[in-house]
Amino acid sequence: MNEFELIEKYFNWTGSNPDVIGVGDDCALITIDSNSQLATSVDTLIEGVHFPKNTSAADIAHKALAVNLSDLAAMGATPEYFTLALTLPEFDESWLKEFSNALKTLANQYNITLVGGDTTKGQLSISINVTGVVKKNKALLRSSAQVGDVIFVSNTIGDAALALWKIQQNIKPSEQLLSQFNRPDPQVQLGCALVGIANACIDISDGLEQDLTHILKRSNVGARINLSDIPLGIEMQTHIEKSQDWCLALAGGDDYELCFSVAPENLSKLKKIEEDLDIKLSAIGLITQDEGIERMGGFDKKCLSYQHF
Amino acid sequence: MNEFELIEKYFNWTGSNPDVIGVGDDCALITIDSNSQLATSVDTLIEGVHFPKNTSAADIAHKALAVNLSDLAAMGATPEYFTLALTLPEFDESWLKEFSNALKTLANQYNITLVGGDTTKGQLSISINVTGVVKKNKALLRSSAQVGDVIFVSNTIGDAALALWKIQQNIKPSEQLLSQFNRPDPQVQLGCALVGIANACIDISDGLEQDLTHILKRSNVGARINLSDIPLGIEMQTHIEKSQDWCLALAGGDDYELCFSVAPENLSKLKKIEEDLDIKLSAIGLITQDEGIERMGGFDKKCLSYQHF
Repeated sequence: MNEFELIEKYFNWTGSNPDVIGVGDDCALITIDSNSQLATSVDTLIEGVHFPKNTSAADIAHKALAVNLSDLAAMGATPEYFTLALTLPEFDESWLKEFSNALKTLANQYNITLVGGDTTKGQLSISINVTGVVKKNKALLRSSAQVGDVIFVSNTIGDAALALWKIQQNIKPSEQLLSQFNRPDPQVQLGCALVGIANACIDISDGLEQDLTHILKRSNVGARINLSDIPLGIEMQTHIEKSQDWCLALAGGDDYELCFSVAPENLSKLKKIEEDLDIKLSAIGLITQDEGIERMGGFDKKCLSYQHF
Repeated sequence: MNEFELIEKYFNWTGSNPDVIGVGDDCALITIDSNSQLATSVDTLIEGVHFPKNTSAADIAHKALAVNLSDLAAMGATPEYFTLALTLPEFDESWLKEFSNALKTLANQYNITLVGGDTTKGQLSISINVTGVVKKNKALLRSSAQVGDVIFVSNTIGDAALALWKIQQNIKPSEQLLSQFNRPDPQVQLGCALVGIANACIDISDGLEQDLTHILKRSNVGARINLSDIPLGIEMQTHIEKSQDWCLALAGGDDYELCFSVAPENLSKLKKIEEDLDIKLSAIGLITQDEGIERMGGFDKKCLSYQHF
């Protein structure tokens, strides 16, 4: 049983409350009035699991908040406030100062306020609960992809996974790769801009194919993707040419880019978003009525996705 | 530097946002419209710190949600929804089933909905973020105690600390004590009833004197308390008679009862709440204009309160 099945089996109780769309999307949605919904999500980062030991306090703080902001982005929600549950093995004032400064810098950048927290003693772990606001019934869901939609991803895919792979092989990653791994940029502006434009959206935290599959299953559709259209950084291109293995790009996690589907009639509006935000958006395939993902491009190996259990 | 000073120094940034009353009370308050505020709080429980190893999954689930509901109670907020960040050393289906059932039972009892979560692998740790609703500017704060207010506590004090002390001394605690320790009842109904009646309120999670001191410091007042008026269970009475030591009652944590101050003109209304809810409320002293707590009753030892760092 993987993490998703585990959550579905033991923690999916929200069916009875009409004001809540619960477990199963990047955020839960809670209706607060006739115009608005809160979008809320929690993500925990644990040393040795989500970041290597010896990661700097500043990088940990950035990533812990960024991955949560990315969940708001995937729903098209505007960030409002967050809480922090911080577990520390010991009291280290210089660590705390660095952590707090980096957290504050990112929070200010996305105009989100720290409203409360808890500090406890134990294995280093950071759990952040973000809350944002989205217009009622306008949030980007995983469940609304339509056959014929074009599938897009933002920026490049797999750089964070390539950085981690290099670290694990004792190869020093470039600054550029390491920055993608330690300092991901949550696509908050893009997410908000996609409201009313995209049919379905998810953030790529668990790997492109695994996350796209979440959209497909929830929407009861399939997808055909073209490997040659997947946007790759130069180092990832080199890695694939050498290894003839696409798995880091297709299944590596930690990208925090958005994967979304857009009906053909909205493509011109999407073009304008791309220009306005000065962001690279790449069409990588189409939503089909088949089941699962059909890869075009001659690489058929099944890639193992990251599982917590 | 203790936990409170740590939070104050590194995580108190909320001064600039007029819609947020942030770090420093049992919950943060966020204004959502002209009538209502959200009250939100996060608390983490870690194995070996907040509960002994070998505590049952059901007891852990109950306590993890109860301590968070207690924070809503202390603000007079009505529970609405919560998120769960669960870190597990391994995937154990029978443990998860028991945990999930107990969590659901308590959630249903207080009409609060699980809306989302995250599961990760690591040292056993449960972080819950609760959110409730309270009428705008009506929340019970720590900062509003007035000189002349009568100080109350609900039910009896120190039972959970006595249970833990007995466990640590290898003495088997009674079922009654153990239940206070493992299965605290959050005083949600009492908290909601105290809105408009109490001037200041806090839940006793870190010990009566330490928590009362939070009210005193925030309200710029002092307190005189009468030891003979502190409500004690029979086992705690026996413990104090034998040991001549009040510290477990005055400084032991984990009670999750409410400590609140009420102006003399509201005492008759409080009597009605006591009868309606069938709960024991004990007047233990008065708010004064002096600094700190003056104990009446002949026990002058300084008790050590629990500190995480």
